[in-house]
Amino acid sequence: MQNFEYYNRTKIIFGKGTEALAGGETAKYAGRVLLHHSGGHAVSSGLLETVKNSLKEAGVGWVELSGVKPNPRLSKVYEGIDLCKKEKLGLVLAVGGGSVIDSSKAIAMGTLYDGDVRDFYDRRQIPAAALPVATVLTISAAGSESSTSSVITREEGQLKQGLNAECIRPVFSVLNPELTYSLPPYQTACGVADMLAHIMERYFTREPHVELTDELCEGTMRAVIRNARKVFSGGASDYNARAELMWAGTLAHNNLLGTGRVGDWASHNIEHELSALYDIAHGAGLSIIFPAWIRYNIKEDTPRLARFAAKVWGVDGAFYDYEQAVMEGIFRMKNFFRSIGLPVSFADANLPTDRIPEMARRAVRFGPLGNYRKLDEKDVEAVYRIAAE
Amino acid sequence: MQNFEYYNRTKIIFGKGTEALAGGETAKYAGRVLLHHSGGHAVSSGLLETVKNSLKEAGVGWVELSGVKPNPRLSKVYEGIDLCKKEKLGLVLAVGGGSVIDSSKAIAMGTLYDGDVRDFYDRRQIPAAALPVATVLTISAAGSESSTSSVITREEGQLKQGLNAECIRPVFSVLNPELTYSLPPYQTACGVADMLAHIMERYFTREPHVELTDELCEGTMRAVIRNARKVFSGGASDYNARAELMWAGTLAHNNLLGTGRVGDWASHNIEHELSALYDIAHGAGLSIIFPAWIRYNIKEDTPRLARFAAKVWGVDGAFYDYEQAVMEGIFRMKNFFRSIGLPVSFADANLPTDRIPEMARRAVRFGPLGNYRKLDEKDVEAVYRIAAE
Repeated sequence: MQNFEYYNRTKIIFGKGTEALAGGETAKYAGRVLLHHSGGHAVSSGLLETVKNSLKEAGVGWVELSGVKPNPRLSKVYEGIDLCKKEKLGLVLAVGGGSVIDSSKAIAMGTLYDGDVRDFYDRRQIPAAALPVATVLTISAAGSESSTSSVITREEGQLKQGLNAECIRPVFSVLNPELTYSLPPYQTACGVADMLAHIMERYFTREPHVELTDELCEGTMRAVIRNARKVFSGGASDYNARAELMWAGTLAHNNLLGTGRVGDWASHNIEHELSALYDIAHGAGLSIIFPAWIRYNIKEDTPRLARFAAKVWGVDGAFYDYEQAVMEGIFRMKNFFRSIGLPVSFADANLPTDRIPEMARRAVRFGPLGNYRKLDEKDVEAVYRIAAE
Repeated sequence: MQNFEYYNRTKIIFGKGTEALAGGETAKYAGRVLLHHSGGHAVSSGLLETVKNSLKEAGVGWVELSGVKPNPRLSKVYEGIDLCKKEKLGLVLAVGGGSVIDSSKAIAMGTLYDGDVRDFYDRRQIPAAALPVATVLTISAAGSESSTSSVITREEGQLKQGLNAECIRPVFSVLNPELTYSLPPYQTACGVADMLAHIMERYFTREPHVELTDELCEGTMRAVIRNARKVFSGGASDYNARAELMWAGTLAHNNLLGTGRVGDWASHNIEHELSALYDIAHGAGLSIIFPAWIRYNIKEDTPRLARFAAKVWGVDGAFYDYEQAVMEGIFRMKNFFRSIGLPVSFADANLPTDRIPEMARRAVRFGPLGNYRKLDEKDVEAVYRIAAE
């Protein structure tokens, strides 16, 4: 087991009706805030109204900034920074999913920085301070509600860039599983792929002594798969199934499941090129890329891949050799993704294959990807090719 | 799943050699601290010297208070409070195990309170503030290093009393598994029983929809059992086995495993009377009480008890009916405890049985115990009787 630090200060307020608590919690940090959202479902569902009433009751003022799109754009971030500076706002309250939260984190950093917030995403500067960020979560997926990450898309060159910084970890997050009942099934499915990917990125490690976190990862993945099946078998409004998914989405990415090990993270970077270029949902990109990544690595620490097949996908080791077990695990994983409406190949998502060399080149622009196995441009291209088969 | 708040701000610094980081971390909170320890192994092993050097390098001064005993005493707490007040100390740094940490927490609360710190343990007052507490942990057991609990023994009347308060949750805890190599096997074993008990208290709930946390509980218990076996099969200095136990001990009691449910906690209270009266280790008391508690409750939600037997103790459901499975699980649990040198009955620990009625009466002095099943005085006496069989 490797030395580690574990620290997660996000206060989670979880359960039915908890969005009404957002105002009181916000008031502990600021008297006026930026209320950031996409403007779509958060408005039409009445959620935003509930949050505003809660702010009002707590005596908290706000300035509103809506219009965040999936794969959030830098242009919107600049708007938010200007507002926060001009209006002297003290916290960014994100009402939405990963995109709104990631945009809020960028705004929070940019507000307390004199230069261009792009410097952080370009890795020219390390963010030292940010306004407090808080969230009212509307989709179980990115785990951004208690993580240090933010991913932003720059319009010019369709560049998707991510970073991690402790200062942007939300101070609190309100999680009401009821808010996810009305999500389009495709969004629920993308969220499931995203949270499974966050766990798999941590699970696939070359550190051999991580028994406890292996157990935690496997148990969380099993719970996600079982409860996703419930939601997609007529359980869209099954509170408990939705609650299991929502809590799992947070735990998947709050770094508890990564303690004592170095994860991989190549698949995330390989996927980012897909969603940057074709604007498909991150989760859908992951359901295409991850099975291909495992297939490409089948000779790399095959026993761990076979354990994954056994513990997560129920492949009985007694009936398979290691490689066969891994192949059977990939088969079951793809079936699962397809059963909840996700693509598992370029063709499933109607993606062209002609820009694969370009995506491979861009994916490795900061150097080789991954830790489970270092992937260079040629390897990344091979993963795309498997996904395109 | 029930609504919950989850918040744990303790920073965990985990791994080899990490005790040397204690000074730098302490300096973020205070310039002069109370250095609290038992005076025994922490001194002879050189650990205290390392911590002092680390404080010195970070420019942190200290006043030392040693002599904490297992089942920590209120008299020592008063000494600490006097020192903190007189010397104007800004943090209590516990170097030791659960007893030293619990004593430190009591001192931290008492220092910022004008009345008698007993008021908190007597439930006459709720603690609102405390000095920051930090720990360098020397035994994997109580989970006190990131929990809100403190248990203190009052000499008069041999009364053992516990409380929970957010203000005494340690701000940071240094966990180096190497420090546990030299523990007497009996102490390691007691720690194993303590952490298993912390998980079982949460696991045994009547809330039916807690799939994810059930998975996390079961996985953590399996990891504890497997790695305890390694440590007791010649692996006293097996870093990875010690590390799994140490991290498990923290997770067992940082309340992650209790989210979305109400746990039981009767066994802890039933045990407290044993260790208060006979001064046996808390863990040894738990290995006596817990199997008896399960046996007494075998008709209460038997499928959950059978699931425990199956998932944690490997009892194959195909070969047993529910009650048989539970009995087989109890049998395996007792065997496990015995195999690591723990008592599983009054006789094993040479405890007399003549004060059972008195212990039962005292155990319920604040009302019936437990949530899985409410136990009154008669029930508690019955649990003691099973343990005395």
